Amino acid sequence: MPRIPAPSDKEVISRLERLATKILNMIEKSAPPYLEIPVRSLSNTIWDEEKKILRLGPQRATREFFDLKESKKFMQTLLMLSLIVKARRENDYPTIRDLYYMGKHTIVYKDHLGRRCTEETWYDQRESNSVIQDIEVATGLLREHMGIMHDAKGKIVGNIVVRSKGYLIDCSRMGSGAYAIPPNPDRLEIAKVEADYVLCVEKDAIFERLNEEEFWRRENCILVTGKGQPDRSTRRMIRRLWEEFGLPVYILTDCDSYGFYIYSVYRSGSISLSYESERLATPGAKFIGVTVSDIEEYKIPKNYIIAATDRDLKRAQELLNYPWFKSEKWQRELKLFLRKKQKIEIEALSGHGFKFLSHVYLPEKISKKKWIE
Amino acid sequence: MPRIPAPSDKEVISRLERLATKILNMIEKSAPPYLEIPVRSLSNTIWDEEKKILRLGPQRATREFFDLKESKKFMQTLLMLSLIVKARRENDYPTIRDLYYMGKHTIVYKDHLGRRCTEETWYDQRESNSVIQDIEVATGLLREHMGIMHDAKGKIVGNIVVRSKGYLIDCSRMGSGAYAIPPNPDRLEIAKVEADYVLCVEKDAIFERLNEEEFWRRENCILVTGKGQPDRSTRRMIRRLWEEFGLPVYILTDCDSYGFYIYSVYRSGSISLSYESERLATPGAKFIGVTVSDIEEYKIPKNYIIAATDRDLKRAQELLNYPWFKSEKWQRELKLFLRKKQKIEIEALSGHGFKFLSHVYLPEKISKKKWIE
Repeated sequence: MPRIPAPSDKEVISRLERLATKILNMIEKSAPPYLEIPVRSLSNTIWDEEKKILRLGPQRATREFFDLKESKKFMQTLLMLSLIVKARRENDYPTIRDLYYMGKHTIVYKDHLGRRCTEETWYDQRESNSVIQDIEVATGLLREHMGIMHDAKGKIVGNIVVRSKGYLIDCSRMGSGAYAIPPNPDRLEIAKVEADYVLCVEKDAIFERLNEEEFWRRENCILVTGKGQPDRSTRRMIRRLWEEFGLPVYILTDCDSYGFYIYSVYRSGSISLSYESERLATPGAKFIGVTVSDIEEYKIPKNYIIAATDRDLKRAQELLNYPWFKSEKWQRELKLFLRKKQKIEIEALSGHGFKFLSHVYLPEKISKKKWIE
Repeated sequence: MPRIPAPSDKEVISRLERLATKILNMIEKSAPPYLEIPVRSLSNTIWDEEKKILRLGPQRATREFFDLKESKKFMQTLLMLSLIVKARRENDYPTIRDLYYMGKHTIVYKDHLGRRCTEETWYDQRESNSVIQDIEVATGLLREHMGIMHDAKGKIVGNIVVRSKGYLIDCSRMGSGAYAIPPNPDRLEIAKVEADYVLCVEKDAIFERLNEEEFWRRENCILVTGKGQPDRSTRRMIRRLWEEFGLPVYILTDCDSYGFYIYSVYRSGSISLSYESERLATPGAKFIGVTVSDIEEYKIPKNYIIAATDRDLKRAQELLNYPWFKSEKWQRELKLFLRKKQKIEIEALSGHGFKFLSHVYLPEKISKKKWIE
């Protein structure tokens, strides 16, 4: 798969300006202004069998200024566009919450009966977030490219050196700490990778434990955690390591529907943000455990097993129908889960001793290719 | 206040063994074995006016093996103690969840009528966590000292160099990322600090934004986030910077009861874990904002103001009665909050422009000493 390079700062501003210029041209020609935006709805989300990712389909919608139903959204989009362009020109890094406040103001007007009315540009951050997403799909830029800040919860350690703002950062020299993945990993230069694979663990506490015993050094790998449901920057980092360096990526989660779904997001993208998958999903990611069959294979004591809830079962049923869970192995695992109604946590493996996970389970899963994809 | 140095690995094992040896001696002398443990209840939590922290009072309880009501807890404590000692001797770093699973097993016995009965060593992680806390207070060791792993969500950047596992880590060379604070900051050597103060922000997104524009370099400070309610390691890191290097510590949160309470935890410790305050609280921490009076002072637009909920008001009422909120300034702020019933977020300051927070608000608050403590 060809690499999609991150656009330069100049390119970002120019793409944003191009969108605005189109509108300006319409106005100057006295044509009714409109925006053309790819549709982000579920109906326009398609499973790309070849690329093995969820992505947006071809549907596009026009948003017309002179359409009463659309004019507010049209204006919100232009308002947000102007805020983002301003921030880029002034080298500012607002958060999505900052942009909400920056753009929020009260419009006072008189209605057709001459009564004074007021209307907020937006009442809720969902409105401002939604137009940010529209600008993302309309320009093909991610909000990260536009310098929009947000939480970043991922961590990375291991045999990798990155460069950020001119500094070389060696992730094998973080001691008991870790390198906190920045909100925009596209601006990282990955200077050196000397690792055989990437291990991505769901739970931070497991990450800390594997880091403390320097699992990554012994196994020559890169260790990452996305702390539960991963954020965009963790997913982007994983994707880059797979795509640019051809590293195998293994995902370790609890054995439950939530864990399986986390794998699904790493691998294929999330349904609500399918337009990002092309940059964020890692179609080659392999699920290394914990699997339902591990309960028998690794003789997990009965009293470690947790009964699956109705919600677990419902979610597993949904996963069963996803196109990217149609492999024979996944179908078998999910059906086993639905039949046995049993889940376990990664920590249940500690019943075999504290070192079992890092010295037996993980090396065995990887060397014997005991994964699901 | 004198510094409490972190105990060495040898000291940790020896303190844990000492606790066990006491029991062994009782058994060898055929005396009924018991443990003596400081009481962790609210009734034994006192406000230390001199040290300005919450801490455990003098109450101690004995836990007797031959007391039917206490024998299970007695056995749970010894079981946990043996697991922790084993982990330390073998240089393992289990999580609290690992310890729960490691110790969980089914005891089969016959009752007085000869019927076969079973009982789990513990049914729930709350039980195993509770005995870990008992061991902490009985030995005066924190779980961090005992090598018990857990999530660590804090991040740090700025003019500080630390040493961990022999590596020098310069937190001014992290680029757009940050140094993720390790689960046990006591094992960090703080090698060099060249900063005027520590700024600790509640919200990760604000941290990222201030880091991206290198606020800490311009202001010569250290920037930390605890991501909402801070965890133990973030609090310990802040405490060490204040205690060992005499740095002023400023806390920036949203203007609401939750934000005020976060300040309270940094400053005085949490009520449920008061035995840790002596190592984790930073009595000198100053609240820098956002304050209720800022709404007027910084002319926050009306439509940025959020109505306080009943829960906010109830919590503010509680804070009003805490001994560490008895200063004139805090009393005035809290009463103002209760009267106006208004709250705002840090991001509301962006109404004055993206640079307002970092170029006007924060420098002004610090240089003009506009803080509350």
